[in-house]
Amino acid sequence: MNSLGRLFKITTFGESHGRCVGVVIDGCPAGLPLAETDIQEEVDRRRPGTGVASTRRSEPDRVEVLSGVFNGVTTGAPVCLLIWNQDVDSSDYQRIRFLPRPGHADYTAFAKYGGFNDFRGGGRFSGRITASFVMAGAIAKKLLVRCGIEVAAHALEIGGIRARPMEFDQIKASAVNDPLKCADAEASRAMTALIEEARAERDSIGGIVEGLARGLPVGLGEPVFDTLEGDLAKALLAIPAIKGVEFGSGFAAAIIRGSENNDPFALEDGRVVTVSNNAGGALGGISSGMPLVVRAAIKPTASIARPQQTVDLEKLEIASLTVGGRHDVCIVPRAVPVVEAMMALTLCDFALMAGLVPRVIR
Amino acid sequence: MNSLGRLFKITTFGESHGRCVGVVIDGCPAGLPLAETDIQEEVDRRRPGTGVASTRRSEPDRVEVLSGVFNGVTTGAPVCLLIWNQDVDSSDYQRIRFLPRPGHADYTAFAKYGGFNDFRGGGRFSGRITASFVMAGAIAKKLLVRCGIEVAAHALEIGGIRARPMEFDQIKASAVNDPLKCADAEASRAMTALIEEARAERDSIGGIVEGLARGLPVGLGEPVFDTLEGDLAKALLAIPAIKGVEFGSGFAAAIIRGSENNDPFALEDGRVVTVSNNAGGALGGISSGMPLVVRAAIKPTASIARPQQTVDLEKLEIASLTVGGRHDVCIVPRAVPVVEAMMALTLCDFALMAGLVPRVIR
Amino acid sequence: MNSLGRLFKITTFGESHGRCVGVVIDGCPAGLPLAETDIQEEVDRRRPGTGVASTRRSEPDRVEVLSGVFNGVTTGAPVCLLIWNQDVDSSDYQRIRFLPRPGHADYTAFAKYGGFNDFRGGGRFSGRITASFVMAGAIAKKLLVRCGIEVAAHALEIGGIRARPMEFDQIKASAVNDPLKCADAEASRAMTALIEEARAERDSIGGIVEGLARGLPVGLGEPVFDTLEGDLAKALLAIPAIKGVEFGSGFAAAIIRGSENNDPFALEDGRVVTVSNNAGGALGGISSGMPLVVRAAIKPTASIARPQQTVDLEKLEIASLTVGGRHDVCIVPRAVPVVEAMMALTLCDFALMAGLVPRVIR
Amino acid sequence: MNSLGRLFKITTFGESHGRCVGVVIDGCPAGLPLAETDIQEEVDRRRPGTGVASTRRSEPDRVEVLSGVFNGVTTGAPVCLLIWNQDVDSSDYQRIRFLPRPGHADYTAFAKYGGFNDFRGGGRFSGRITASFVMAGAIAKKLLVRCGIEVAAHALEIGGIRARPMEFDQIKASAVNDPLKCADAEASRAMTALIEEARAERDSIGGIVEGLARGLPVGLGEPVFDTLEGDLAKALLAIPAIKGVEFGSGFAAAIIRGSENNDPFALEDGRVVTVSNNAGGALGGISSGMPLVVRAAIKPTASIARPQQTVDLEKLEIASLTVGGRHDVCIVPRAVPVVEAMMALTLCDFALMAGLVPRVIR
Repeated sequence: MNSLGRLFKITTFGESHGRCVGVVIDGCPAGLPLAETDIQEEVDRRRPGTGVASTRRSEPDRVEVLSGVFNGVTTGAPVCLLIWNQDVDSSDYQRIRFLPRPGHADYTAFAKYGGFNDFRGGGRFSGRITASFVMAGAIAKKLLVRCGIEVAAHALEIGGIRARPMEFDQIKASAVNDPLKCADAEASRAMTALIEEARAERDSIGGIVEGLARGLPVGLGEPVFDTLEGDLAKALLAIPAIKGVEFGSGFAAAIIRGSENNDPFALEDGRVVTVSNNAGGALGGISSGMPLVVRAAIKPTASIARPQQTVDLEKLEIASLTVGGRHDVCIVPRAVPVVEAMMALTLCDFALMAGLVPRVIR
Repeated sequence: MNSLGRLFKITTFGESHGRCVGVVIDGCPAGLPLAETDIQEEVDRRRPGTGVASTRRSEPDRVEVLSGVFNGVTTGAPVCLLIWNQDVDSSDYQRIRFLPRPGHADYTAFAKYGGFNDFRGGGRFSGRITASFVMAGAIAKKLLVRCGIEVAAHALEIGGIRARPMEFDQIKASAVNDPLKCADAEASRAMTALIEEARAERDSIGGIVEGLARGLPVGLGEPVFDTLEGDLAKALLAIPAIKGVEFGSGFAAAIIRGSENNDPFALEDGRVVTVSNNAGGALGGISSGMPLVVRAAIKPTASIARPQQTVDLEKLEIASLTVGGRHDVCIVPRAVPVVEAMMALTLCDFALMAGLVPRVIR
Repeated sequence: MNSLGRLFKITTFGESHGRCVGVVIDGCPAGLPLAETDIQEEVDRRRPGTGVASTRRSEPDRVEVLSGVFNGVTTGAPVCLLIWNQDVDSSDYQRIRFLPRPGHADYTAFAKYGGFNDFRGGGRFSGRITASFVMAGAIAKKLLVRCGIEVAAHALEIGGIRARPMEFDQIKASAVNDPLKCADAEASRAMTALIEEARAERDSIGGIVEGLARGLPVGLGEPVFDTLEGDLAKALLAIPAIKGVEFGSGFAAAIIRGSENNDPFALEDGRVVTVSNNAGGALGGISSGMPLVVRAAIKPTASIARPQQTVDLEKLEIASLTVGGRHDVCIVPRAVPVVEAMMALTLCDFALMAGLVPRVIR
Repeated sequence: MNSLGRLFKITTFGESHGRCVGVVIDGCPAGLPLAETDIQEEVDRRRPGTGVASTRRSEPDRVEVLSGVFNGVTTGAPVCLLIWNQDVDSSDYQRIRFLPRPGHADYTAFAKYGGFNDFRGGGRFSGRITASFVMAGAIAKKLLVRCGIEVAAHALEIGGIRARPMEFDQIKASAVNDPLKCADAEASRAMTALIEEARAERDSIGGIVEGLARGLPVGLGEPVFDTLEGDLAKALLAIPAIKGVEFGSGFAAAIIRGSENNDPFALEDGRVVTVSNNAGGALGGISSGMPLVVRAAIKPTASIARPQQTVDLEKLEIASLTVGGRHDVCIVPRAVPVVEAMMALTLCDFALMAGLVPRVIR
């Protein structure tokens, strides 16, 4: 349902064109200094940029703390964070209420909720609800940093163009300022051209976001079902548009030999490490101490400005639909901070379960 | 931890070289006819075959029902299913207690459980524990069939060789009798050759298992976090050796355009369908009524009969290790029924949540 | 933590003197007509009356619906309900920050949250947070009524004075308008005198709230742990000041014989009933179809206007404390709608699990 | 359903006259020395004694460890404990299949599970399943002792005769050897006479079990819903025959004044304590550091050897029933170790959540 996590647990609410989007964070330790600006910063990263990829919907998206913080510090009580929706134009959606957009949840939401779903802008199924994930993720990241865990995501691939391999620090430093959140400036330029091309063709384009975490201790993850990979995959697949998740060598592991894929153990400063990291930082569902590497496949934005075939759900007849409104040609850059948030939330929950994060921060 | 599901909930226990592997199924409706042979059949499919891919460990693996069944019918009480371990040879493992096998959970389990983990045969992290999944999955499949839902998995790809596209019925009929669980006989032969080659080189090989479900109604899945895809991915990633999961067009969606990837809606016998099925049967985390398509990347078996570099965890020094014992060159065929089981378990839970499966079967 | 329920799940947030108190209801079926006034009505019942028992804090407590309702009907998305705090006077609390009030959670909250808890007015531990329970309960009651289940609570006993036994309908009709929510007008007058007496003595007084539910089908409750009684008791014990819960004959069952306590089965209009109802509507943790009867012991209000001994937590020395502020002499009447809410929430969750409440209301 | 707990989580299975009763303990830390005899000892305490109160069913009830223990130490994997049923005589039950025993779950189980429930000896609803609770509780107690927490229960009252007040140590020392588990020898003799009397009258008798815990730190309990009292009450109400639960002054608090019921704070060796303990060790759902005091009302055994009125569920007509078989006249003494077990399980879960119990015991 709308909650995620065990000891660090979030519950989200709100719709694209309703009054607000919000989240309640339960299990946040007491004693964490927390200002609205801390969260605002993360939320701003999710906003449509001035870049080529984005919609022109431009809300200020001002974060408000409704509970759980007293004198600038968390109290141990649930933290409720909220953004009021402001720049909402629902006029276009009323027209297409019974015309589900291909690739969207319009039809399945209509069927599941008997037509009572808020269809405006995708309602509860809009990408906008990921603002809740990012707000909660901002707190998770602050907690993780305190135990030496850093999370970073970047646009690894857009439309088939892939960034060259880089180190964690370089990615972290470069991706944040790139309009496409790609750490490789050259690839970013090529991606930009491709996005422009797709826009001109009234089409859209997808890609791959890679998430990295370092500083993880050995031992996070609760086999056999609440594995590090399983929980991460589940969390990531809550992001609309993600259709696949892989860890380490991932799908490539299906092709290579065991002798290539196995990561030999070695010693580094008396610490057990692996020479390679095809496992992507997890063995048996448990973190190995090596960097966590996860990749998520983002499908091309479903909303495209071309006529598409659909079905009129009222009249039950074939219809043609051209989606209006403001849409991203490529959602990948905006998905980057959301992937980071989902990783942070998942890791923070595991860190609490492992006793790594104290219940009171002093 | 070791439980999965909400209303149809399994709890697994047991180790590779302990006394048994078992599972408790909670939430199984009353009134389901259930014989040990029903479950035995599914478990037998997971056993190493006589084929090229498999280990020579050959236990009878006889399923016993310990509770929850009375007069051949489920009672509504928890069903406990058990297999006693018999053909256990732990001699080899004692020798390598402090020598973690590359690609295995030996090291992470050692670290997480302070060396108290049962290391024999991988203990709790052995593929053998998936027998528990298969036992529980057998019940889930029986319940699903009653609401018209069929699940099938097959070896889609081994070592890069991919079976040609086929229809659900054909896959279901052909894969089950193929030694590699591949529905395409020609591809199966090529895969066999590759496996022989890998065996000769004392190496191993991976592949891709594809899972399919048809007969799903529209509406299974509980957004935003308990999505159909998210829960399936989490369940599948509990299978040792799975390193990636994708739905429908999956990672390929990252390359194609929105106009290609979107599935246009159409009508078929008055029912809303999609012309293509790039979504893989789910939109917005909710089943669309189209066949569910999921693919899982299986890494090459970590146990290979070659010397590999590891670290002696006692002496903290580099060591060389040659894994003895009996191991599958390619785990893909044996993973097929396990993928089916995890799909069945996940779908059954959603079916119960949707009220599709009654609490009492009359 | 701050969530309750499985399929009908609430998550609460907010503090006594913070910005608001609120609740997110997850799992509410789509299609339920819902107006702010529906919820307002229930919340108003919890407000301090003009009667003898109550505090003089008097906020309008206006309920706002933040999400999950569209065109006056629930959408199936989480419903967030909020009350902004207005009439807040925190001046008195600052003074007693380190002086925990006897009988309150001040000390345990201080210790558990390292002194970071919002101590103003009891913060998260104030009775005010039960406004969240009542808001959510209002929705649960609307759902229950649709399956013929009615819930009613009343002040059965105050300060040892007990109302005479009455029928469900009479209780429901009479209690609601009585200033003390006692269905027996004569007892109510005696209770009033007792409360006046306690007030004059700067003391406080407790009592017993009885909760009743009728129209329950046979079969609600999920043994062995999620029993009807167990879940109700847990929910009720979340109400501050409740120190005991009993069902049917309850503690009196400890004294009488089996032959007296057993309820003989009988037939009524072809339906199985029991002649007496010492079981209180549940056998083996499952509803029997007879009226549910639960009683909750409410301790006397901890805040009294007399000097009491406490410990200065800063200086670690004995101190004297006279609690100022506005407090109820007897919390029992205000607890009545809260008990009703907790019963409704628990029963609604079971009703959803039993498939009694549909996922879409048409 | 059949699981309880969050981080220390048990899942029970088995029936009175099925093959076995068992339990899976998930979340048990690695490194705990554990022998079957440790658990056997606790289970033996639940067995019918030679005393006046008990049934003559006398199984050896030998505990077997099926998983999770290796070389005499827990591994961190789920621990499955099992007792095979042996001395089972089901002949009597077949005869009364459609004749629900008053005061038993026969009727509600029949209705909930559509008549598919295992009715022999009450099946899943028999007191016998509490052997599972006791097995799991034995582990919980071992873990609690390591953090200085001791749990003790005793028969406080039988048939209205109450033991005189005593100190924790005295209760712990005396109750264990008393045939009725009553710490007051004189009261025990009077209770015995009463039980003999009830037996002679072919009747049964109930009582009150009191549970105590000392050594609790301040801070256990997770408000607002997962309170110490709420979780304890829920766990205790899973014990068949318990109809009420109270903490500290409990129902008596409903009668006395706030000035009497409030526990003044004081200092003892620099530690904050309360002068009295009417709160029963918890304030605001959080342990206060004072001894935990809980009392559970046990109804008189429902099975009595007198003719009682019931309904024939097949013919739907009034019938008379005389329950045969072997039954306890008074279940109170046998409930004592079960209350202890449920307290230990609940406290152990909270202790894990509070980080008090390490994940690996070294």
